Amino acid sequence: MLARRAHHRPRRTGPPVTWIEDPAFVADAPFGPQTLPYGVLGDDGIAVRVGDQALPLRPIADHFGALAPLVSAGDLNPLLAAGRPAWSELRARVLELVTAASAPRGAVLAALGGEVLPFQVADYVDFYSSRHHAENVGRIFRPDGEPLLPNWTHIPIGYHGRAGTVVVSGTPVVRPHGQRKTPEGPVFGPSQRLDIEAEVGFVCGGPVASRLTPSRAVDHVFGVALVNDWSARDVQAWEYQPLGPFLGKSFATSISAWITPLEAFAVARVTPPPLGNDVLPYLVEERPWGLDVRLEVEWNGTLVSKPPFREMSWTFAQQLAHLSANGATVRPGDLIASGTVSGPSRDERGSFLELSWGGKEQVDVDGGRTFLEDGDTVRITATAPGEHGSLVGLAEVVGTIAPADTER
Amino acid sequence: MLARRAHHRPRRTGPPVTWIEDPAFVADAPFGPQTLPYGVLGDDGIAVRVGDQALPLRPIADHFGALAPLVSAGDLNPLLAAGRPAWSELRARVLELVTAASAPRGAVLAALGGEVLPFQVADYVDFYSSRHHAENVGRIFRPDGEPLLPNWTHIPIGYHGRAGTVVVSGTPVVRPHGQRKTPEGPVFGPSQRLDIEAEVGFVCGGPVASRLTPSRAVDHVFGVALVNDWSARDVQAWEYQPLGPFLGKSFATSISAWITPLEAFAVARVTPPPLGNDVLPYLVEERPWGLDVRLEVEWNGTLVSKPPFREMSWTFAQQLAHLSANGATVRPGDLIASGTVSGPSRDERGSFLELSWGGKEQVDVDGGRTFLEDGDTVRITATAPGEHGSLVGLAEVVGTIAPADTER
Repeated sequence: MLARRAHHRPRRTGPPVTWIEDPAFVADAPFGPQTLPYGVLGDDGIAVRVGDQALPLRPIADHFGALAPLVSAGDLNPLLAAGRPAWSELRARVLELVTAASAPRGAVLAALGGEVLPFQVADYVDFYSSRHHAENVGRIFRPDGEPLLPNWTHIPIGYHGRAGTVVVSGTPVVRPHGQRKTPEGPVFGPSQRLDIEAEVGFVCGGPVASRLTPSRAVDHVFGVALVNDWSARDVQAWEYQPLGPFLGKSFATSISAWITPLEAFAVARVTPPPLGNDVLPYLVEERPWGLDVRLEVEWNGTLVSKPPFREMSWTFAQQLAHLSANGATVRPGDLIASGTVSGPSRDERGSFLELSWGGKEQVDVDGGRTFLEDGDTVRITATAPGEHGSLVGLAEVVGTIAPADTER
Repeated sequence: MLARRAHHRPRRTGPPVTWIEDPAFVADAPFGPQTLPYGVLGDDGIAVRVGDQALPLRPIADHFGALAPLVSAGDLNPLLAAGRPAWSELRARVLELVTAASAPRGAVLAALGGEVLPFQVADYVDFYSSRHHAENVGRIFRPDGEPLLPNWTHIPIGYHGRAGTVVVSGTPVVRPHGQRKTPEGPVFGPSQRLDIEAEVGFVCGGPVASRLTPSRAVDHVFGVALVNDWSARDVQAWEYQPLGPFLGKSFATSISAWITPLEAFAVARVTPPPLGNDVLPYLVEERPWGLDVRLEVEWNGTLVSKPPFREMSWTFAQQLAHLSANGATVRPGDLIASGTVSGPSRDERGSFLELSWGGKEQVDVDGGRTFLEDGDTVRITATAPGEHGSLVGLAEVVGTIAPADTER
């Protein structure tokens, strides 16, 4: 088993003077005042996560002035549409309210657990921006060829996924049916190679825009989520040529219930590893938006991988500049995901396809696993460095495999 | 120039006794009472096309009883969600009203021209179901290999497109920028191989559902539209491996402003050409939903192709059964397109890539064309056989190429 990171380090300073008395709402913990992610609690509407509790905003909407309609909505979409100035103003006001000495009039804390999908997904694009992942997959599927295709170092390769099957963390994932190839011909049935892809997602907002530069693209990213892009490798392998993955991916994509604002990641910016060639001018970033986000993947409670997001070759700003370069619009509610996050070493791989090397090597979980069995649970969490040595948290994305549906 | 079909054949019977006196609103014309497609006229809301005019429904909503909210909405989405029984009831009531001897109280006819995108597109899936198209593309791009990949006769191959850039007929199509490969390496600039794909689209509705059989799938199709899936072939060729088309397609997909109800195509059902192998049981149709829809493609007013939709190998019912077989949901507003419609002969090809055979042969338009030039206009129309020898129309999908955007 891999060593866990110590998320809750000993506190170095006294507790902040705030009305929220929660040992998880401190600067050393991932959901302290430096993080403040947004989610939606069913009928209670938009809330901010404070430690291991949530503060619904609708009951205290009158503390937000002109922003009151945005925090009183049923989901995050109106806030996403409002754009960066509103996002910054709201975050500053929320910070004031949650770090005040006394509770704002009307405030009632809520338990976690009632989260729903926090926004309506417009278009969902999944990228493929880890060189280690792309090379691993190339070596597994094309052992005699070059592991990386020639376009990969010039283009942030990506494709459209299915927006309608993006689900919130905790939603059971029913083992998908699909076609797979056998020596006797194709057969239809439950997938036998069900996998994960540990990814980081970026939730878009601001005015509808196209032909963004990387620096303008940043103002169209509201926040960051964790993503598990569940994948049926046997279905994918048989279907994907020539038009790319389709049913091997479209049955479910899970995202974390809480979206951490991009502003919380100012300290986490890093320069991505070099591509080995110049990129075309429309993809050049003056100061790159690589992020030192550290993921952890638990399979049935066993920590099996620690994928390092700082190893990704293409940043979200480059991805948005690319996807809008042809005139395609970026809309509030668009979700872009990074692609599987894999680092250079074995215990940094973000898919079980890679961890089991195409199903050939057992992963040390419950007596040995290659792909997912019914009842298995996968939990992905992440943190990034915050100001003054704090940790910025990305909320878990978790899912349990339910048996294939036998009804038709 | 190809011979045009005679759409307006001599009338064999007297004019129907109706208050709508329009020579195009007769059973021999494609938008007679046998067709009655729905569209949205900007602020006037939902309308029914009657010949070369439109009847807005909101002003006469009180003639529709419990269906009044559906016809008074700002777009077709509430109607799409209502499902087959409501669609049938509405169509019957509309037919009564437009064929009555006197105008319903409040009715005012409107001119065509103010149409907007008639529904909010949820997910957009583009299939690849013409064997002739797939084989042509295979021969052009892989001259030394088998023209058809082995999965093609077992799977209705498809991929997700960008829902946010589906636009209504008439919207200018700005020449997209993108990366293309040159002997000196990749370059970024306006596409030099801008193309069309003449397709038929199916607009989904009814309750959210998954794992549909082909026969159940039919109840999730509200109506039929024409689609032009504009394609930048140079961008597509460089980007598409291994995850499929992305920026080569995502800049614009045009659909007709009017959606012809599926019920109008009862007479047009045909059996598709054989695949040459059995299909897996989940794709078997008892009575297939091939459709004898006859397309015409005009390039700057010259008829260049007559693609026959009856030549498609996979039906929309099989496509929906396939895309939902893994548990993926079908939602109101989902749009599935057939893939480029190409027939066996040269003048039946649905893309300029095929008509010009990869840019090698000039198409006889304005002194010779291979791909689209700025200012070019493409218009796609179609008809299908209706009851009693009538013609059912699919409204035009038209677009003109605007020069590449030089702003950034």
